[in-house]
Amino acid sequence: MKMPNHAIIKEVGPRDGLQNEASILATEHKVEWINHLSETGLSYIEISSFVHPKWIPQLADALEVARNIQRHSQVTYAALVPNKIGLKRALEANLDEISVFMSASETHNKKNINKTIAETLPVLESIVREAKQHGLSVRGYLSTVFGCPYEGEVAIDQVITLSQSLFNMGIDELSLGDTIGVANPKQVANILIRLREAFPHKNIALHFHDTRGTALANCLTALQLGFNTFDSSLGGLGGCPYAKGASGNLATDDLLYMLEGMGIATGINRKKLLQAAQYIQGVLPQPLPSHHMQIFAKGGNPL
Amino acid sequence: MKMPNHAIIKEVGPRDGLQNEASILATEHKVEWINHLSETGLSYIEISSFVHPKWIPQLADALEVARNIQRHSQVTYAALVPNKIGLKRALEANLDEISVFMSASETHNKKNINKTIAETLPVLESIVREAKQHGLSVRGYLSTVFGCPYEGEVAIDQVITLSQSLFNMGIDELSLGDTIGVANPKQVANILIRLREAFPHKNIALHFHDTRGTALANCLTALQLGFNTFDSSLGGLGGCPYAKGASGNLATDDLLYMLEGMGIATGINRKKLLQAAQYIQGVLPQPLPSHHMQIFAKGGNPL
Repeated sequence: MKMPNHAIIKEVGPRDGLQNEASILATEHKVEWINHLSETGLSYIEISSFVHPKWIPQLADALEVARNIQRHSQVTYAALVPNKIGLKRALEANLDEISVFMSASETHNKKNINKTIAETLPVLESIVREAKQHGLSVRGYLSTVFGCPYEGEVAIDQVITLSQSLFNMGIDELSLGDTIGVANPKQVANILIRLREAFPHKNIALHFHDTRGTALANCLTALQLGFNTFDSSLGGLGGCPYAKGASGNLATDDLLYMLEGMGIATGINRKKLLQAAQYIQGVLPQPLPSHHMQIFAKGGNPL
Repeated sequence: MKMPNHAIIKEVGPRDGLQNEASILATEHKVEWINHLSETGLSYIEISSFVHPKWIPQLADALEVARNIQRHSQVTYAALVPNKIGLKRALEANLDEISVFMSASETHNKKNINKTIAETLPVLESIVREAKQHGLSVRGYLSTVFGCPYEGEVAIDQVITLSQSLFNMGIDELSLGDTIGVANPKQVANILIRLREAFPHKNIALHFHDTRGTALANCLTALQLGFNTFDSSLGGLGGCPYAKGASGNLATDDLLYMLEGMGIATGINRKKLLQAAQYIQGVLPQPLPSHHMQIFAKGGNPL
């Protein structure tokens, strides 16, 4: 079984997880959680989003979070940025990286960003240009790559074309999202083989959701094709935006278990990671959905 | 991505699922559930166990269940048999197949069967011989192949030796169990590559548990190596015997979703399967843990 010997896990829980939680966490809890995460060996933490608080009240304190966390030199701290106002705030927050985002399907893009894809591209281009001028690295998120809740399957050609547009803007990394958790390994292989022909695979991350249980099988497929960067959310925080309470983001703890078992190095300490998960569990009203946190919740020990 | 073009799913929920449920279901509910399952296109249903009711009171009505279900000619109806008394009852029940069981690790075998492995083998041999004389096919379960809750890792050589002993007895199929849900794809590949050298892979089934979220990734690995028979439990019924409430048996609905998405034929109708899952959910006191049933529970539609 040919595999990369190391993988990079990008923790998106403080952003993608918390933005899908019904409850709004206290800023101090977010800060303490991110401080825990910084101690685990993670190299990348997406700490919040500078989307207008009207849309995501859960992350209204993005600037305060960024100013109060303890920074570790080996960690890249990032946040989502939807427009120039968001970028201005991200620059005030002194982050290492920003992320821009759009969908691969027209309807999801329209519902999520309130713009057509054609209208979105120049906005993102202008954010990317300005961010690069300020010395930030930039990540691009492309959502609904593996299926759209409104349109169903998305054409691979559309994914390639939009990926090319994003790389042309100057993004450093592209994260391909299975926003509704419908991807299967064969589909993942079909898409990644095409993408690998067009772009260096080291610049591509996979952002799988575990809504139908296939996320780790999809990661395995990506690994077998040489891709080794994955987004995940500790404890599976956030759930599914389309069926609240069902599984959403792939859980960092579940992903790390599989990678460690296969001898793929990540630099992350699993014990510390599970401690960070237990910290955030302690301030949440409902149980975290990851397999590992379920074992804890039922009195077992997943270590 | 090279894959078998079809797979066989063996439904073990009425046995392996129900035996791990805290509550005891009414016989009529079991019968009605199995009748639903027989309508889905499944070719194999393990309906109960003839283990002494003292040990598994949940399945004390095995004979009554067997006598009351409607048999479909294309379905193999099977049950677990621990000894000659169990076999006698299984013969009265007019089943198509029986299963014998043991563990690959000494400590788990001792705790589960109250015999050493050396003491277990002749007992199984004698059951297999008698079952074959009565024209039944026989399945052998080997548990803790991928890890033991008491001993940790189990040597591959031990797995090969015991598999050989079971095939020498005359079993028709060997089901390899990841009893505590610790297996990872690399380990699965290592073990299956060895097994494939020793035995025809069409005679080997994989019985994965999803306790740490790796079950579908493990199935994918097995498929890539040409193995195409999997045990699973509808809705993930049964949970984990070592952390009640955490995930246990791989869920049939989750497995079918992945196989269908990859174009691997099973003969099972997913809509009917989810209806059968909703039936059993309706008579259970707690929510079923599969990803698909969680989507239903939260108001989504996994179809």
